[in-house]
Amino acid sequence: MNAEEELLALGRNVRRLRMERGLSQEELADLSGLHRNYIGGIERGERNVGVKALFAIAKGLKIAAMELLR
Amino acid sequence: MNAEEELLALGRNVRRLRMERGLSQEELADLSGLHRNYIGGIERGERNVGVKALFAIAKGLKIAAMELLR
Repeated sequence: MNAEEELLALGRNVRRLRMERGLSQEELADLSGLHRNYIGGIERGERNVGVKALFAIAKGLKIAAMELLR
Repeated sequence: MNAEEELLALGRNVRRLRMERGLSQEELADLSGLHRNYIGGIERGERNVGVKALFAIAKGLKIAAMELLR
Protein backbone atom coordinates (compact mmCIF):
# COMPACT_ATOMS: atom_id res chain seq x y z
CA MET A 1 0.00 0.00 0.00
CA ASN A 2 1.17 3.51 -0.67
CA ALA A 3 0.76 6.32 1.85
CA GLU A 4 -2.63 7.44 0.51
CA GLU A 5 -4.02 3.91 0.66
CA GLU A 6 -2.70 3.54 4.19
CA LEU A 7 -4.43 6.77 5.26
CA LEU A 8 -7.66 5.53 3.67
CA ALA A 9 -7.37 2.20 5.50
CA LEU A 10 -6.79 4.02 8.78
CA GLY A 11 -9.82 6.20 8.10
CA ARG A 12 -12.03 3.20 7.36
CA ASN A 13 -10.81 1.63 10.59
CA VAL A 14 -11.71 4.69 12.64
CA ARG A 15 -15.15 4.90 11.02
CA ARG A 16 -15.88 1.19 11.54
CA LEU A 17 -14.78 1.23 15.19
CA ARG A 18 -16.76 4.42 15.83
CA MET A 19 -19.93 3.05 14.25
CA GLU A 20 -19.59 -0.29 16.07
CA ARG A 21 -19.83 1.79 19.24
CA GLY A 22 -22.86 3.68 17.97
CA LEU A 23 -21.02 7.00 18.18
CA SER A 24 -21.50 9.99 15.88
CA GLN A 25 -18.43 11.87 14.65
CA GLU A 26 -19.40 14.63 17.06
CA GLU A 27 -19.59 12.23 20.01
CA LEU A 28 -16.21 10.70 19.18
CA ALA A 29 -14.79 14.20 18.78
CA ASP A 30 -16.04 15.11 22.27
CA LEU A 31 -14.65 11.88 23.75
CA SER A 32 -11.28 12.48 22.06
CA GLY A 33 -10.99 16.21 22.63
CA LEU A 34 -10.71 16.77 18.88
CA HIS A 35 -12.86 18.75 16.46
CA ARG A 36 -15.62 16.93 14.58
CA ASN A 37 -14.27 18.19 11.25
CA TYR A 38 -10.89 16.70 12.07
CA ILE A 39 -12.48 13.30 12.78
CA GLY A 40 -14.30 13.56 9.44
CA GLY A 41 -11.04 14.33 7.62
CA ILE A 42 -9.32 11.37 9.24
CA GLU A 43 -12.16 9.02 8.29
CA ARG A 44 -11.92 10.21 4.69
CA GLY A 45 -8.16 9.54 4.68
CA GLU A 46 -7.42 13.21 4.10
CA ARG A 47 -5.33 13.78 7.22
CA ASN A 48 -1.77 12.79 8.00
CA VAL A 49 -2.87 12.23 11.60
CA GLY A 50 -0.33 12.88 14.32
CA VAL A 51 0.15 10.13 16.88
CA LYS A 52 -1.14 12.39 19.65
CA ALA A 53 -4.50 12.58 17.86
CA LEU A 54 -4.30 8.82 17.25
CA PHE A 55 -3.83 8.20 20.97
CA ALA A 56 -6.72 10.57 21.75
CA ILE A 57 -9.05 8.77 19.33
CA ALA A 58 -8.02 5.40 20.75
CA LYS A 59 -8.93 6.65 24.23
CA GLY A 60 -12.26 7.92 22.91
CA LEU A 61 -12.93 4.47 21.44
CA LYS A 62 -11.51 2.71 24.53
CA ILE A 63 -9.07 0.64 22.51
CA ALA A 64 -5.28 0.40 22.19
CA ALA A 65 -3.88 2.85 19.61
CA MET A 66 -2.28 -0.02 17.69
CA GLU A 67 -5.77 -1.34 16.87
CA LEU A 68 -6.30 1.75 14.71
CA LEU A 69 -3.43 0.65 12.46
CA ARG A 70 -4.39 -3.02 12.31
CA MET B 1 -0.21 7.33 30.07
CA ASN B 2 -0.45 10.96 29.02
CA ALA B 3 0.50 12.12 25.52
CA GLU B 4 4.14 12.86 26.41
CA GLU B 5 4.60 9.41 27.96
CA GLU B 6 3.01 7.82 24.90
CA LEU B 7 5.41 9.68 22.58
CA LEU B 8 8.33 8.54 24.77
CA ALA B 9 7.11 4.94 24.63
CA LEU B 10 6.81 5.15 20.84
CA GLY B 11 10.33 6.60 20.65
CA ARG B 12 11.75 3.81 22.79
CA ASN B 13 9.99 1.29 20.55
CA VAL B 14 11.49 2.77 17.40
CA ARG B 15 14.97 2.83 18.96
CA ARG B 16 14.72 -0.76 20.22
CA LEU B 17 13.46 -2.11 16.88
CA ARG B 18 16.12 -0.14 14.98
CA MET B 19 18.94 -1.39 17.20
CA GLU B 20 17.67 -4.99 17.07
CA ARG B 21 18.23 -4.71 13.31
CA GLY B 22 21.71 -3.26 13.78
CA LEU B 23 20.73 -0.06 11.99
CA SER B 24 22.07 3.42 12.71
CA GLN B 25 19.65 6.36 12.77
CA GLU B 26 21.12 7.41 9.44
CA GLU B 27 20.54 3.98 7.92
CA LEU B 28 16.94 3.87 9.14
CA ALA B 29 16.46 7.40 7.82
CA ASP B 30 17.69 6.30 4.39
CA LEU B 31 15.46 3.20 4.43
CA SER B 32 12.44 5.30 5.46
CA GLY B 33 13.04 8.32 3.27
CA LEU B 34 13.13 10.57 6.34
CA HIS B 35 15.84 12.82 7.73
CA ARG B 36 18.18 11.44 10.39
CA ASN B 37 17.38 14.35 12.71
CA TYR B 38 13.70 13.52 12.43
CA ILE B 39 14.37 9.89 13.44
CA GLY B 40 16.39 11.18 16.40
CA GLY B 41 13.54 13.46 17.48
CA ILE B 42 11.04 10.62 17.27
CA GLU B 43 13.27 8.34 19.34
CA ARG B 44 13.55 11.05 22.01
CA GLY B 45 9.75 11.40 22.09
CA GLU B 46 9.97 15.00 20.91
CA ARG B 47 7.90 14.60 17.75
CA ASN B 48 4.17 14.26 17.28
CA VAL B 49 4.88 11.89 14.39
CA GLY B 50 2.42 11.84 11.53
CA VAL B 51 1.12 8.45 10.46
CA LYS B 52 2.76 8.81 7.04
CA ALA B 53 6.17 8.95 8.77
CA LEU B 54 5.08 6.06 10.99
CA PHE B 55 4.24 3.97 7.92
CA ALA B 56 7.58 4.92 6.32
CA ILE B 57 9.53 3.90 9.43
CA ALA B 58 7.62 0.62 9.63
CA LYS B 59 8.60 -0.09 6.02
CA GLY B 60 12.21 0.76 6.82
CA LEU B 61 12.10 -1.69 9.73
CA LYS B 62 10.10 -4.25 7.69
CA ILE B 63 7.36 -4.52 10.29
CA ALA B 64 3.65 -3.64 10.45
CA ALA B 65 3.07 -0.05 11.57
CA MET B 66 0.93 -1.25 14.47
CA GLU B 67 4.02 -2.85 16.00
CA LEU B 68 5.43 0.64 16.56
CA LEU B 69 2.50 1.42 18.90
CA ARG B 70 2.52 -1.90 20.74
